Amino acid sequence: MSNKIRWGVLGGGGDSLIGVLHRVAASMFDAYQLVGGSFNPDIEVSKDFATQIGIPTDRIYKDLTELVQKETALPADQRMQVVSILTPNFLHFPMAKQLLEAGFNVICEKPMTMTHAEALELEAIQKKNGNVFGLTHTYTGYPMVRQMREMIANGELGEIQKVDAQYYQGWINNLIHDKEQRNSTWRLMPEKSGISCCLGDIGVHAYQMLEFVTGKKIKSVLADLNHLYEDNEMDIDGTVLLRLDEYTKGVLRSSQIATGEENNFTVAIYGTKAGLKWEQENPNYLYLLEDGQPMRVLKPGHAYNSALSLDGTKLPPGHPEGIFDAMGNIYKGVAKVIRGEDYNSGEFPGMTDGVRGMNFIEKAVQSHRDGNVWVNL
Amino acid sequence: MSNKIRWGVLGGGGDSLIGVLHRVAASMFDAYQLVGGSFNPDIEVSKDFATQIGIPTDRIYKDLTELVQKETALPADQRMQVVSILTPNFLHFPMAKQLLEAGFNVICEKPMTMTHAEALELEAIQKKNGNVFGLTHTYTGYPMVRQMREMIANGELGEIQKVDAQYYQGWINNLIHDKEQRNSTWRLMPEKSGISCCLGDIGVHAYQMLEFVTGKKIKSVLADLNHLYEDNEMDIDGTVLLRLDEYTKGVLRSSQIATGEENNFTVAIYGTKAGLKWEQENPNYLYLLEDGQPMRVLKPGHAYNSALSLDGTKLPPGHPEGIFDAMGNIYKGVAKVIRGEDYNSGEFPGMTDGVRGMNFIEKAVQSHRDGNVWVNL
Amino acid sequence: MSNKIRWGVLGGGGDSLIGVLHRVAASMFDAYQLVGGSFNPDIEVSKDFATQIGIPTDRIYKDLTELVQKETALPADQRMQVVSILTPNFLHFPMAKQLLEAGFNVICEKPMTMTHAEALELEAIQKKNGNVFGLTHTYTGYPMVRQMREMIANGELGEIQKVDAQYYQGWINNLIHDKEQRNSTWRLMPEKSGISCCLGDIGVHAYQMLEFVTGKKIKSVLADLNHLYEDNEMDIDGTVLLRLDEYTKGVLRSSQIATGEENNFTVAIYGTKAGLKWEQENPNYLYLLEDGQPMRVLKPGHAYNSALSLDGTKLPPGHPEGIFDAMGNIYKGVAKVIRGEDYNSGEFPGMTDGVRGMNFIEKAVQSHRDGNVWVNL
Amino acid sequence: MSNKIRWGVLGGGGDSLIGVLHRVAASMFDAYQLVGGSFNPDIEVSKDFATQIGIPTDRIYKDLTELVQKETALPADQRMQVVSILTPNFLHFPMAKQLLEAGFNVICEKPMTMTHAEALELEAIQKKNGNVFGLTHTYTGYPMVRQMREMIANGELGEIQKVDAQYYQGWINNLIHDKEQRNSTWRLMPEKSGISCCLGDIGVHAYQMLEFVTGKKIKSVLADLNHLYEDNEMDIDGTVLLRLDEYTKGVLRSSQIATGEENNFTVAIYGTKAGLKWEQENPNYLYLLEDGQPMRVLKPGHAYNSALSLDGTKLPPGHPEGIFDAMGNIYKGVAKVIRGEDYNSGEFPGMTDGVRGMNFIEKAVQSHRDGNVWVNL
Repeated sequence: MSNKIRWGVLGGGGDSLIGVLHRVAASMFDAYQLVGGSFNPDIEVSKDFATQIGIPTDRIYKDLTELVQKETALPADQRMQVVSILTPNFLHFPMAKQLLEAGFNVICEKPMTMTHAEALELEAIQKKNGNVFGLTHTYTGYPMVRQMREMIANGELGEIQKVDAQYYQGWINNLIHDKEQRNSTWRLMPEKSGISCCLGDIGVHAYQMLEFVTGKKIKSVLADLNHLYEDNEMDIDGTVLLRLDEYTKGVLRSSQIATGEENNFTVAIYGTKAGLKWEQENPNYLYLLEDGQPMRVLKPGHAYNSALSLDGTKLPPGHPEGIFDAMGNIYKGVAKVIRGEDYNSGEFPGMTDGVRGMNFIEKAVQSHRDGNVWVNL
Repeated sequence: MSNKIRWGVLGGGGDSLIGVLHRVAASMFDAYQLVGGSFNPDIEVSKDFATQIGIPTDRIYKDLTELVQKETALPADQRMQVVSILTPNFLHFPMAKQLLEAGFNVICEKPMTMTHAEALELEAIQKKNGNVFGLTHTYTGYPMVRQMREMIANGELGEIQKVDAQYYQGWINNLIHDKEQRNSTWRLMPEKSGISCCLGDIGVHAYQMLEFVTGKKIKSVLADLNHLYEDNEMDIDGTVLLRLDEYTKGVLRSSQIATGEENNFTVAIYGTKAGLKWEQENPNYLYLLEDGQPMRVLKPGHAYNSALSLDGTKLPPGHPEGIFDAMGNIYKGVAKVIRGEDYNSGEFPGMTDGVRGMNFIEKAVQSHRDGNVWVNL
Repeated sequence: MSNKIRWGVLGGGGDSLIGVLHRVAASMFDAYQLVGGSFNPDIEVSKDFATQIGIPTDRIYKDLTELVQKETALPADQRMQVVSILTPNFLHFPMAKQLLEAGFNVICEKPMTMTHAEALELEAIQKKNGNVFGLTHTYTGYPMVRQMREMIANGELGEIQKVDAQYYQGWINNLIHDKEQRNSTWRLMPEKSGISCCLGDIGVHAYQMLEFVTGKKIKSVLADLNHLYEDNEMDIDGTVLLRLDEYTKGVLRSSQIATGEENNFTVAIYGTKAGLKWEQENPNYLYLLEDGQPMRVLKPGHAYNSALSLDGTKLPPGHPEGIFDAMGNIYKGVAKVIRGEDYNSGEFPGMTDGVRGMNFIEKAVQSHRDGNVWVNL
Repeated sequence: MSNKIRWGVLGGGGDSLIGVLHRVAASMFDAYQLVGGSFNPDIEVSKDFATQIGIPTDRIYKDLTELVQKETALPADQRMQVVSILTPNFLHFPMAKQLLEAGFNVICEKPMTMTHAEALELEAIQKKNGNVFGLTHTYTGYPMVRQMREMIANGELGEIQKVDAQYYQGWINNLIHDKEQRNSTWRLMPEKSGISCCLGDIGVHAYQMLEFVTGKKIKSVLADLNHLYEDNEMDIDGTVLLRLDEYTKGVLRSSQIATGEENNFTVAIYGTKAGLKWEQENPNYLYLLEDGQPMRVLKPGHAYNSALSLDGTKLPPGHPEGIFDAMGNIYKGVAKVIRGEDYNSGEFPGMTDGVRGMNFIEKAVQSHRDGNVWVNL
């Protein structure tokens, strides 16, 4: 019998890109076997999709309730071990809640919930039940992001004295200047997207990344968000001033009206000994800056990298790793925990990241609404 | 029943990176189902590996002969439809021959054979039997390489007047200066590696790429190869002058002693209207140069790309595609042909690429041995 | 008789780099003749330096007072037409004041003054006397910065919706962690450096650049500055939130503790139609971003550039322009005005830039001191 | 009295870019005083130009013969010490000859002569008379090129095992496809341009650079040149195989039909210990590659650079140096020799570079004409 992890998926059927991404990621290290799930609200569509991607239809369920009921009725060695939630954002919370309460491990797409309160509720359940919970802040799976985290943890930057993260996209420029479009896009509707558009969608990635690589917590924020038209006040741009420690400050910039930008997510951390910079669109390069020294360019797969970084590299140096690889690394980490193997906490983001992320979004929006004042996290 | 392609694999077990790469690639578009094969000469090791990666062991065979015998005995709708050859180089030819003769479709790792004569023999069998044959010149699967090919085919460069390809690595520098090491590395032994080390391993990628993107054939070559020590004359570096047409010339440079280079493979094509440049280590950028115009930087996933390029892109612009994605695209193309679907000849390299590649290697070595003279291909 | 502009210099003698920079810049377009000045407080040292750089010593003066007295006594067609102030920062104001009052044109190194009040005083004198006043915000002299300004003025970006400027250096990291050093460096002493270190030295460049390229005024600021040790509260890092119009926001980041950074000054402007990005360390590249289009990379010297940009380019495309060239362009612009020739207001920064810059520094510091609140400019 | 070097110039008047470049370069280190020359065949035009650029007209001569006659009649301490030749290529040889024979030091634009024989003739005169002779292979003046040379000389690359130089331009594509234009451009007329267009104009820069940075001599060449139309056989593209030592090979590629390329001149040197790469269009970066180490990026002005490199840097790190700076460094080197000061042979190219360059051009053309065979240099 296969020793693969029995894996279920909610959503992600049809032409869903996120579905492809998760399935490929799950296949990368031969750790998961997709055994069923519910890809679509229509059970027939769901079963057709199962057939199309080559899995049996006997564990395709009409909804999550049926899934939980039938799977929990199976013997422990046949039951789904982990379920991925790839459904629309507003379903993340109720689905994660139901799964966690029923004892399933969960891999959840970002955002974890719509509010910080919901996030705290999930956290409480998870703490009680001890489930594995992975949140797909995919970018943390890149080998050079992992390397950044390890180098900082090892003190190679000394004391951190400045952090700077940018996440600039331009796609909302395409629609924001048309009244009808901007008021019919789900991202710009609070009921579907939550309290924030830009911060909630991408700013929170930058926030999580800063905490991931530095190992520090951001303590307070002062935000200035922006919208362009009075008839839609969802933030599509925003800068957040950050305080980590008394003398450690930083800034997080996010925008969806940075016209022409694709997915320009960058992180720079400066310490007393050195600085490190990374760019998502060229994820295989990590730049190490030191006083009076030539800049060094670290790349994946070399022996000079940490074990955590090398564990996420599959090919020899010079072969680019893409986003599929990053997601694959996260699935690999979740698999290790499910199997009870040793793992590094940097291998995948989890519940705490989700809770902190939702808190960040709400506090940043509050800072903005209260007139750009500092708010503690 | 699944409509996935029934897929077998030879070699690629254990910690094999090439095995991982092919399995992930096969999973990327939900097109293949791994049903069996022979991962290792030891049948027990092979079966253990099957279990480890989660597939049944009933179609794990002790060798290719058994595989051919048992699979051909199965009903047509259960039989393996395609077999991937991931074994050591010297086995590529005999295995491909046996599979093609038995009517199987084949995906074969590079190099296709050890000699041009063998390559011609395979080609003859394939022509007679009509099998699908994919040769994994993986780099042609990158979206921007495909875009380059399409733009040139559409005349966007005008008439081609200059081609330049570079494939520089430095890894042999690590061992070449130690007599024992350089004489015990299989890459530097003609009996295991064939007539050429550097040209055969990487120069042939550059050769195939030039023909792939230009749609032209290289007609003659003049080569100057290099080795560093008298006791091992296998080429570890070499420059090849190229002639495509009377007034179209070019140069192909390959090296394994370009110290510190990882996998620095670049292609530049210049025509009467414009030039195009691409670099494997940053595969998501395609540079378009025109007289007196700002350089343009094309990236995957945008509507301005060709259908062939977009078909190989899975995510929105700004999300890097890596080598896994490139290999995945090649598997996808092979799947289309196996299923009898429409496909673009740029989707995967095949038999002709293998034949021409082996011919290139032999003729380039001949040019060098004959004193750096022009040799027709 | 030469039709060169008669030019005097205060400071910049000996090994002064700023002296070299101004003399080379002045020579670039054959527009200036250095006729005298006061290079050093010691008249003998000053004369020796004059001899060393090949100019007569008869118009080398012991101080500015003598210079003004003797030069104003000369016939108009022999008198110095313009004087460059290259002395330490605290002398800029009194020297500029004396020169402007005596009717001389002035080229002044940055910062123009120590306070906004002084800046306003200079402006009043200049307005009354009509002198030419050039302030060497050197970076505005780069051809691609000029091109950026012209493209924005021509509406190629549409309405501006987001601005972002960064000026990161790391040099203070070298000394800030040593108590003695940080309290003996003139940059960190308010009496020598003014109200601000980081903002005053480099942040103001970023501020002036944003206004220069956009043609807009920044209306209010909210600043968060940083220092690392209680015993020296001069800012060595700071982020300033910016408001240009109701819906146009931005951020200016400056740091001298971005360890390992050299002179990493970047500007990005995003509008409804397109975005433009520029980096000082690679000043010959201007990046044009548009929705769904390949990024374009504009370079100096091409016919597609504006007249203002081309006027600042001396060599064919592909020959890099450096900081000398940028300063040379500014001197050229000042020469045009002195000669009464047509010129473009983008050719050199002047009095208004100085006044606004000092105001920015003071208001940003005030914003920080008042608890990170918005302050109107 | 000024201790500047008394400097004369032939050619370079009016709008000549090369004139501007040399005058700015000469001014950079306060070492030269332009005292006269002959800017134009028409003495009145020449005098007007002198006035325009602010120098007295009493030492403006109608031609070189008059210059030599009158200047040699002056007392030694007033006579021109060095003369720069900026006239059209075919005049370089006769003018240099006349000047060297009359005892003047010479700075000569490239190409030194039209033939190798002429170059040898100049060399013989110089050897006899002991004049200083600088040949403006400007690119050797870049600080990071100098650093490359010093690092190689210090053994930091170990034994060199591979060299690769590229000089790609695209400007001839603009005119080559029009019969009238290609047959009326002086660059494509052997009587004005000499035996070679592409090799003579730019290939020789690459050749000189390879010898400059490696300190080695290229011993033999095998060339394949190209033209596009039968009615004009001047080379506009060409690849040259190189042999330095028995086991040290390389390749030099030059083209003027690399459509869209500006001045894409690159050099890569690989040794047993490390590799170094440099690109003219980004001249402030030097890339150091080592087995299994992060690539290092060296930049000008840092203490880790050699004295030779630092001597050519005028500003702190992070301030880009351009082509003016490179030429300025060459003038500085020539000044040192004229003044009898210590200097490094890397400070400026001279007679030997000119002789070897002309020899290279002729031998490469011969290799091509003889059917792409090896020719010793």
